[in-house]
Amino acid sequence: MSDLIQKPPQRLAIIGVGLIGGSFALAMREATRDVHIVGCDRDEINLAAARHLGVINSAVHEAAAAVHGADMVLIAVPVGQFESVLQQITPTLSSTAIITDVGSTKGSIVRSAQAILGSAFKRFVPGHPIAGAEYSGVRAARADLFRNRSVVLTPVEGGDKLPCEIMRKCWEACGAQVEEMSVLRHDAIFGVVSHLPHLLSFALVYDIATRVDADTLFRFAASGFRAFTRIAGSSPEMWRDIGLANRDVLLLEIARYREHLDRLSELLTQQNATGLEEFLRLAREARRSWAENS
Amino acid sequence: MSDLIQKPPQRLAIIGVGLIGGSFALAMREATRDVHIVGCDRDEINLAAARHLGVINSAVHEAAAAVHGADMVLIAVPVGQFESVLQQITPTLSSTAIITDVGSTKGSIVRSAQAILGSAFKRFVPGHPIAGAEYSGVRAARADLFRNRSVVLTPVEGGDKLPCEIMRKCWEACGAQVEEMSVLRHDAIFGVVSHLPHLLSFALVYDIATRVDADTLFRFAASGFRAFTRIAGSSPEMWRDIGLANRDVLLLEIARYREHLDRLSELLTQQNATGLEEFLRLAREARRSWAENS
Repeated sequence: MSDLIQKPPQRLAIIGVGLIGGSFALAMREATRDVHIVGCDRDEINLAAARHLGVINSAVHEAAAAVHGADMVLIAVPVGQFESVLQQITPTLSSTAIITDVGSTKGSIVRSAQAILGSAFKRFVPGHPIAGAEYSGVRAARADLFRNRSVVLTPVEGGDKLPCEIMRKCWEACGAQVEEMSVLRHDAIFGVVSHLPHLLSFALVYDIATRVDADTLFRFAASGFRAFTRIAGSSPEMWRDIGLANRDVLLLEIARYREHLDRLSELLTQQNATGLEEFLRLAREARRSWAENS
Repeated sequence: MSDLIQKPPQRLAIIGVGLIGGSFALAMREATRDVHIVGCDRDEINLAAARHLGVINSAVHEAAAAVHGADMVLIAVPVGQFESVLQQITPTLSSTAIITDVGSTKGSIVRSAQAILGSAFKRFVPGHPIAGAEYSGVRAARADLFRNRSVVLTPVEGGDKLPCEIMRKCWEACGAQVEEMSVLRHDAIFGVVSHLPHLLSFALVYDIATRVDADTLFRFAASGFRAFTRIAGSSPEMWRDIGLANRDVLLLEIARYREHLDRLSELLTQQNATGLEEFLRLAREARRSWAENS
């Protein structure tokens, strides 16, 4: 790793040692020789497990203490806790520490960081690894979670170049492919391909769960339903935060999606067999083409 | 098998030797000793493959000829071709033949059968095996496709009891669990747990595929999107037919679902974090409870 990056982290602080934070820790441990990893988590049992499993070298209960002396700080807490963490760590950050995150939205994250980090903002590298599973917690963490996955960095305006290069090299050392784009583009893209499907899935399960005959309905739900609603098994807290953080994009996307439902209703009402088949066929061809090329 | 049912089929005609028709043939061949299976399919290549693979004993190109002398006829064609098949076979059906189907909707099927089958209608057993995959054709057929799956029968008003009992025994011999319910109840249930999710999935893929930046969007689509849209890889023809056949239920269900999207939009607009989390949590608990118990 040392021949890949100018400065591999020697003391890495992970705030939020869950699936993503824990996996980054494991991957970095494999990629570097002597990194000391400090973990901090609001869940004491999860934090103890992280220590016990060797995901982290030391466990610290206060984020402010955890970042002391760290040259890299990865914030991997739910998006809604991001501001609170920033408030806690800003006073004790070293003057050269890189701060980075892994949140599924970037606009709200960058706004918070700009407001709170002060002079450290220029060393903030917003990031988003496109990886994960519905399950959370350090026990689900894996060193290969990011292998062959995409990581998107959305460098801040006026930020230093070196922190961004270092984060790129670190993620590449985790096996990921790194791309850069603007904050707005990131939130627009992921609003459609990630945030919207999650909300649609939650909405369908809610729809069924709130019926008198929910048990019967679930009983007859087969593999298609299972696949469609798998992502409604995700963390409500995390998706609440993402929904609110990317609200503007989501309101537009929900409205746009609703138009397609209106179109389907219209085709059904008119009994327009040709129009309906064309609609479905276009979708099927696109889906198959995407599945083959990904 | 002979000790399970009074009269195992000796000559079984399968009209539409695809995934479902082919799998029923394979399962019945395992469950009975001497059944002769005649296959009929509009796709000559598929029909030849069915013969070549030993799924059927003989291949016949005309449905009318295929059912000649058959004591059981399974119609496994797309729902939209059902009427045409009935028109073809009614004149040559034997006076004791059981006719059954495997369509995903039952109301339209029963109406067609009642109008066309004449005196044979009382030997018609509407059926729906809850099994399958996105792929079709006899090469995907498996003898164990229905093992531990549900099959729903919706016996017709005034129908003979024996054909229904025989179909039950046959499906049980295929390893399935058989339930009976009314046509209306079937279409209401499957409208929600099967037909609606398919349309919602198609609509999302259509939404993305019709954008200028579709390629970029698909590139960043991860496993959640893949799961959600897997069922949009299904046959557009089949789903066009199902959509139209179960139109009344689907129009209601789409309208109901749209209300939940409106509710989500309202929660986002109001930035109602508590309300949003409650919504998502209710869905997540229901989904997990269902997944564990199924």
